[in-house]
Amino acid sequence: MNATVLGCGRWGSFIAWYLNKLGFSVTLWGRPGSSRLKALCETRDNGLLTFPSTVKFTDDLKQAVSEAELLFISISAQSLRTLTASLQPLLPKNTPVILCMKGIEEATGLRLTQIVGEFISAPSAVWVGPGHVQDFLQGIPNCMVIDSQDDTLKQRLVPLLSSELIRFYYGTDLIGSEVGAAAKNVVGIAAGMLDGLDQSSLKGALMSRGTREIARLIESMGGNGLSAYGLCHLGDYQATLFSQHSHNRRFGELFIRHEPYGELAEGASTVRALCLLGQRLQVDLPICQAVDQVVHRGEDPSLALSGLFLRTLKNEF
Amino acid sequence: MNATVLGCGRWGSFIAWYLNKLGFSVTLWGRPGSSRLKALCETRDNGLLTFPSTVKFTDDLKQAVSEAELLFISISAQSLRTLTASLQPLLPKNTPVILCMKGIEEATGLRLTQIVGEFISAPSAVWVGPGHVQDFLQGIPNCMVIDSQDDTLKQRLVPLLSSELIRFYYGTDLIGSEVGAAAKNVVGIAAGMLDGLDQSSLKGALMSRGTREIARLIESMGGNGLSAYGLCHLGDYQATLFSQHSHNRRFGELFIRHEPYGELAEGASTVRALCLLGQRLQVDLPICQAVDQVVHRGEDPSLALSGLFLRTLKNEF
Repeated sequence: MNATVLGCGRWGSFIAWYLNKLGFSVTLWGRPGSSRLKALCETRDNGLLTFPSTVKFTDDLKQAVSEAELLFISISAQSLRTLTASLQPLLPKNTPVILCMKGIEEATGLRLTQIVGEFISAPSAVWVGPGHVQDFLQGIPNCMVIDSQDDTLKQRLVPLLSSELIRFYYGTDLIGSEVGAAAKNVVGIAAGMLDGLDQSSLKGALMSRGTREIARLIESMGGNGLSAYGLCHLGDYQATLFSQHSHNRRFGELFIRHEPYGELAEGASTVRALCLLGQRLQVDLPICQAVDQVVHRGEDPSLALSGLFLRTLKNEF
Repeated sequence: MNATVLGCGRWGSFIAWYLNKLGFSVTLWGRPGSSRLKALCETRDNGLLTFPSTVKFTDDLKQAVSEAELLFISISAQSLRTLTASLQPLLPKNTPVILCMKGIEEATGLRLTQIVGEFISAPSAVWVGPGHVQDFLQGIPNCMVIDSQDDTLKQRLVPLLSSELIRFYYGTDLIGSEVGAAAKNVVGIAAGMLDGLDQSSLKGALMSRGTREIARLIESMGGNGLSAYGLCHLGDYQATLFSQHSHNRRFGELFIRHEPYGELAEGASTVRALCLLGQRLQVDLPICQAVDQVVHRGEDPSLALSGLFLRTLKNEF
């Protein structure tokens, strides 16, 4: 079966490698001019994993997707609209899209499957939950989630993609799975900030209050609040709030230390979208607001963040 | 105001030190023959903190409690019944008891305030939630919870005990606060076992499934399932599942490595009580059962524990 992966970053490259292991015929696409793609073409290696010669690399989108029977996308969430618009005339009509990425569109507050749905009529799914490339490559297994509004697609993907390394659960709340997955990056930034402030032990309170606030948001969007406590959000806290590999945690920590951080921290964009949704739906999101104020409005992190937990005496729920 | 602390372990000693800082007149009791008490009397130091001369040490229970206006207890949960029975004839009639300890009675499945209630008519409260002595002594603040069936006591204790270092929330579900606090030690053992098996990344799934299972148990006992996601349980996961200071996590890790562990791991007793409750109330507690089987019945930890997360393909909720 032909599978194409769009996006040759850390996670997209891993998915290409993983699908190849599972026996798919894999094409990995990177945007024209991508230095990562260039390096892959030259060395078949990205510093973490080495690709067998059966995996094809290309920067030609038309060629990449023309024979795809399954299309996986793993790019920056804020670039999804542009890429999906380009895909519209190219993708075979019935090829399902599996989004292996987390985020909410900053300008609109839209979930990623909503954006895909504007351009592509085939069903889409999300692949979310915990798991770091570095761990998987050491053979450490994890559980992840496939969710979709299309039950047939979900029932098809879970057994097709499961292995000893990744055990998939069936998600049953697409809204919760998408919002939970996106929001964990924001909580990850907050965790990194607490690390940077030498207040790592407040990460306990952060977990408790963070899940609660995201549960409220998911409910107000029509999803199941419990999803915030599932693999897509709380289940990803180990990888996001505690791991050295986490982009978003690291971004938050270095932000506090005034050190530059080169790589993408999706949560920095997503937090704006979440605050927009909170405002629109009249849901109180104190942790998201604190992260937004620190990252985008120059607020003092110690006041904004640890103050959140330590300020008031009140009932817990 | 006179405050007495029964139990001179790490946490009891810290509470005596903390109450002294808050301005209480403090007596710290240890059982006759306690080597910890002996060392305290000789050096006024327990390796973590040093006591000012105003804190009194004694092994005489009658003397320790005769003038107590508040009584704090921090001992092994499985010894609470014996100690409380001895207290019955000694404690002034209106002195409230504050339990600074976590557990469920192994033989009966009773919560700790239920045991106290069998012997003492004054109201009791629990002091639970995250926080390690080592962190507090470095000035790192945290949030904790006071819960009680007696609203007047709770309203009195929260402002009385709060400081810049410990910010108390009012708990509103005594069953949940007690069961959640006790159960986090069991999840802590499971986390240590995953660390010992080099599968730390499964701690994400453990958090998600562990909270869910304890929420179900709390609900079946008549409490509020949300408490499992509060400070008493999930809020204590940072300190319990990820910290090097955690007794229970360390116990689980060393158990896997077949290394001896000298100190108390309350979760090893509490897990039996939780399995008893699960059986009695017909609640499925797969993580508790796995820990019980590994610790008490010689089951293979890799099969019992990581198998739990990786075995089946199913709906998440």
